[in-house]
Amino acid sequence: MENNIIISRLSALRGKMSRLGIDCFLIPTADPHSSEYVAEHFQTRRFFSGFTGSSGTLAVGREKAGLWTDGRYFIQAEKELRGTGVDLYREGEEGVPTVPAWISRQLEDGGALGFDGRCVSVRTFRALRKVLSGRRIRFVTEYDPADGIWTDRPPRPANPVFVLEEKYAGESAAAKLGRVREAMRAEGAGIYVESKLDNLMWLLNLRGRDIACTPVALGFGVFTMERAVLFLQESACTDAVRAYAGGIGLELRPYDSVYSFLEDPSLYRASSGAASGEKEKVLRVLFQPGSLNCRLLAAIQRGQDRARSARLDEPELSQGAHTAHDSGRGTESEGPSGGAHKSAEKRSPCFAVEKRSPVEDFKAVKNAVELRNIRDCYREDSAAVCRFLYWLHCHVREGTIGSLTELDAAERMDALRAGIDDFVELSFGTISAYGANAAMMHYAAKPGDCARLRPEGMLLVDCGGQYLRGTTDVTRTMALGPVTQQMRRHYTLTAVGNLQLMDAVFLYGCTGRNVDILARQPLWNTFVDYKCGTGHGIGYLLSVHEGPQNIRWRFVGGLEEAVLEPGMIVSDEPGVYIEGEYGIRIETILEVVEAAKNGDGRFLRFSPLTLVPFDPALIDPQYLTPQTREALNRYHARVCAEISPLLLPAERDWLRAQTEPV
Amino acid sequence: MENNIIISRLSALRGKMSRLGIDCFLIPTADPHSSEYVAEHFQTRRFFSGFTGSSGTLAVGREKAGLWTDGRYFIQAEKELRGTGVDLYREGEEGVPTVPAWISRQLEDGGALGFDGRCVSVRTFRALRKVLSGRRIRFVTEYDPADGIWTDRPPRPANPVFVLEEKYAGESAAAKLGRVREAMRAEGAGIYVESKLDNLMWLLNLRGRDIACTPVALGFGVFTMERAVLFLQESACTDAVRAYAGGIGLELRPYDSVYSFLEDPSLYRASSGAASGEKEKVLRVLFQPGSLNCRLLAAIQRGQDRARSARLDEPELSQGAHTAHDSGRGTESEGPSGGAHKSAEKRSPCFAVEKRSPVEDFKAVKNAVELRNIRDCYREDSAAVCRFLYWLHCHVREGTIGSLTELDAAERMDALRAGIDDFVELSFGTISAYGANAAMMHYAAKPGDCARLRPEGMLLVDCGGQYLRGTTDVTRTMALGPVTQQMRRHYTLTAVGNLQLMDAVFLYGCTGRNVDILARQPLWNTFVDYKCGTGHGIGYLLSVHEGPQNIRWRFVGGLEEAVLEPGMIVSDEPGVYIEGEYGIRIETILEVVEAAKNGDGRFLRFSPLTLVPFDPALIDPQYLTPQTREALNRYHARVCAEISPLLLPAERDWLRAQTEPV
Repeated sequence: MENNIIISRLSALRGKMSRLGIDCFLIPTADPHSSEYVAEHFQTRRFFSGFTGSSGTLAVGREKAGLWTDGRYFIQAEKELRGTGVDLYREGEEGVPTVPAWISRQLEDGGALGFDGRCVSVRTFRALRKVLSGRRIRFVTEYDPADGIWTDRPPRPANPVFVLEEKYAGESAAAKLGRVREAMRAEGAGIYVESKLDNLMWLLNLRGRDIACTPVALGFGVFTMERAVLFLQESACTDAVRAYAGGIGLELRPYDSVYSFLEDPSLYRASSGAASGEKEKVLRVLFQPGSLNCRLLAAIQRGQDRARSARLDEPELSQGAHTAHDSGRGTESEGPSGGAHKSAEKRSPCFAVEKRSPVEDFKAVKNAVELRNIRDCYREDSAAVCRFLYWLHCHVREGTIGSLTELDAAERMDALRAGIDDFVELSFGTISAYGANAAMMHYAAKPGDCARLRPEGMLLVDCGGQYLRGTTDVTRTMALGPVTQQMRRHYTLTAVGNLQLMDAVFLYGCTGRNVDILARQPLWNTFVDYKCGTGHGIGYLLSVHEGPQNIRWRFVGGLEEAVLEPGMIVSDEPGVYIEGEYGIRIETILEVVEAAKNGDGRFLRFSPLTLVPFDPALIDPQYLTPQTREALNRYHARVCAEISPLLLPAERDWLRAQTEPV
Repeated sequence: MENNIIISRLSALRGKMSRLGIDCFLIPTADPHSSEYVAEHFQTRRFFSGFTGSSGTLAVGREKAGLWTDGRYFIQAEKELRGTGVDLYREGEEGVPTVPAWISRQLEDGGALGFDGRCVSVRTFRALRKVLSGRRIRFVTEYDPADGIWTDRPPRPANPVFVLEEKYAGESAAAKLGRVREAMRAEGAGIYVESKLDNLMWLLNLRGRDIACTPVALGFGVFTMERAVLFLQESACTDAVRAYAGGIGLELRPYDSVYSFLEDPSLYRASSGAASGEKEKVLRVLFQPGSLNCRLLAAIQRGQDRARSARLDEPELSQGAHTAHDSGRGTESEGPSGGAHKSAEKRSPCFAVEKRSPVEDFKAVKNAVELRNIRDCYREDSAAVCRFLYWLHCHVREGTIGSLTELDAAERMDALRAGIDDFVELSFGTISAYGANAAMMHYAAKPGDCARLRPEGMLLVDCGGQYLRGTTDVTRTMALGPVTQQMRRHYTLTAVGNLQLMDAVFLYGCTGRNVDILARQPLWNTFVDYKCGTGHGIGYLLSVHEGPQNIRWRFVGGLEEAVLEPGMIVSDEPGVYIEGEYGIRIETILEVVEAAKNGDGRFLRFSPLTLVPFDPALIDPQYLTPQTREALNRYHARVCAEISPLLLPAERDWLRAQTEPV
């Protein structure tokens, strides 16, 4: 059966492509800020393909169209793409072409590839360009594919921004900007462009509500040694925000004006005493190529070009000279031409420092105020999870567990969390996965399509909240009744991994790669692995996934390694996923703390922030080592001591029983 | 008191510098092959400084001179440099300038730095040039500082080369060359220059005796798609070697002619169908910048330049064009000018592929024949160590241990090893360190300056041999009588680390960095660290230290990380070093083997090659975990089963007792 809605949308898009002379259109799942989750307004990939998963890329040629997604979504995508004429490409499966390779085959030499330059990062564009090099492909980057076709498109979110008080943030925006400018100076950059929303919010102590579960507002920031300019949507700027901005010397400008602002040559002219060296004719721009969008880079290039031309008597000659001069550091900074009608324009490469934004590193190391808040916050969040587990326990005890669905459990958990004083919203959609559903790492129960609980097997709940005092994330897996011996063994090995990592002592200088094996070893010893990282960083009232630190055994595909610093927060979440049978994940959030300093070095360790018991019904003591048994008992004693005061008497009794020494 | 010998040598050197217009002379501990250990002939640093340690760098300015060495040698260097006028710089200590920084301060702008271009690698030169950039420093690289001054200099070693039969090597030189040429093709290189001796020997199935403890001959290799040229000293070429070379089409040329050979433009002219792309005018050269010496690079540059000039009508113009064309890949390949009188010559950058030699990767993965030989060899070598331990045990039992010195013990060990059939030589000077001496990781007992053993505390012996069936390395630490509780605790924690690594299971793709923490964790948990890597690769009748694999928690200073592959061999040598008190090291050599393959991936593990018991008198069972206790007992059972048949009855009884289950 044909899906006429999608067919007609694609037909409209192809008509538009034909008018614009575009042979293939690339439509990723992205907003102009390289956000992990994107607002409804930016769901053009979903609009044109009908595929509703959170992650995927659509490419539309004159005749063929393809959608790429990963293993989480193969079954769903197959169902949703049926009758659309869009072919499903299963990422990572053998023989499946990559998006650039497929596009390359669709295009004739000299053809035109279209994409919205705001929704493709410089890094992604370069990967594409590399595959297409030597083919004389034109890049047409100034059209939004949905314009004029998606008539009932939700408006761009533009919710009011609010200021995060210093009692929560722990450091003023001015102080943070001072640190950023120091980093700019060290890199020889005179301008810093930030488009990643969590970085921007952290730096300016602002928060928004434009993306579900991530309290950020759409915006861009441009910073020089003298100026700080924030580009926000009109309706996001409350009086309070205007007053705050005025107080700290932050210029507010309209969101969409960032592009023309960056094209202004005066921005790049070094004032005396600027950071750039004397030889340089324009200020060097610091940006992160993995998050800066192509249109921003094009605007920077145009602005720098104009600054060079305006400064010299013989623009043609001087431009050539600059190209040669800059090529050492700047060659890589070439973006797409910026639009079909511009493709003939010759532009010098951008004069840039391309690297991880200094804010990524700053915001990962929580300050003393943030840490105090976070510790309190995790205690209350953990108490809510304990109360949820007690509620489940009561249903099991009373034989009523079968009356509940996965969604009922998720709703109960969410309601308990919402009851916490400074709760803002969930930090992601609660995962409540029963039985075989838990084998899918990112399973989402839906009304009308979710499992009913039964008094046997295991329920996995992965959830978290956004609070003024921080962002939480926690996973526990619990028995709802009888379980198999293999389930207990796998649960215990997962617990041992979780505890071994939690208990690690390591020298300063270690990254997540050094310690990852402590979480995997019990499973690897039995030839079992989980196909994901062991841990990720977590924001402060920001993204539940944040870098640069990561606990993984290898780093591929642009993932960066970072040294573990005291004040960083990481998750510790080993698991076992047996397709069609069950899934186990135990996720405990850890804070990096100092342990000892002596002649042998500076030793660090972890301290758990999450204080929720493991399920003793799933622990098989024969797989514990004396150390992990001791670590489990120590952890449980702390859980009992710190969480009991936050519980009702019956819950407290239950917690005491759950945390009895093994 | 003044050291007049050194003073007069330095004075002669300064006179020579003055005549040659050199302001500062750099004299590293190096031969033209970046060998780890260098022959007597190349000990110019020792000659001019009087410092006899194995590692150090001397720099001589017009007035000042400095010697840099590491922590192993601070005390010795201080003693030996007294009265020489040479200042000691303790590497790694706070406030100590680096060699390049010191040299930079000695030189005025436009000054001249001298060094023997044969004894400085391209990588070292570039690091130096970076620090001196913008100073208009001239590099004078064609003089050997000792020429005309070191009158009783030992001749360059030139011992006969021998062919390693295929029953030992397991693969013909022709097959190895085929693999190298495949790698050259993949890299787009038409020429491959190898100057690292172990790589060259491995590739051609040759061995020599020019460097103590490393069975290599001085030589260079130049390989194209059609030719294989080996540069050897006349007296190294036996008739057997000539016949062998003739048989496999290997051209033999005089050792010193490699430089003029590389300057010959005809070498770089691509024949039709060569690996290089059509756009390229000369063949691209593959080399390893960390081992290629500067003079070789200068010769390559000269040869390529001539090839370019000869090919084109307008050499001046074309040369400029080539510079621009090559700069993408070749800019980095600029070497020093090649001599004072050449410093005005303008030369294009070398057209090169600079990367780890393919031979490094090939030779690290032992083939089936090598592995069978190695396993046998380690069994016999381990038996010799067991017999040594039994001999010590007898001395302890009979109360005669006090009659022995560290050297007596070393000699006994060496004699037992020399008794093995295919023994060639030691793989390094045996370390026999008693008590506090063992806290120095590289302690060397000397006649007249070595400790007498006593019936208490611990003796550390680190030793190994070169055999036709492989190269061995092993360390054991044993009690000679009563020991403190802390010694037993530290020994047991070291043993636990050794066993945890030995027992590791890991996914294919892991490097030594992923597994290092398994060896360190028991020590890190008590805030103790050993200041060195956990493990290194080992050659086959070659260097006892070989890459590219390494077990370390971090990789600094040009160290490379490599994936652990089945067939690789690594050491596992955690330790505890308490200055002034004692040292513990347990070194077991491991082979990487397949463990399992399933839906979760391809799992590898280690299998021990070294089969020598730990000292049960030093094991405190309270620090073992059930797993490590089981691993220890399993290891000991294997030691007993495999080594007993190689021992005499009394030794066998002793081994049975030593390997009783704990």
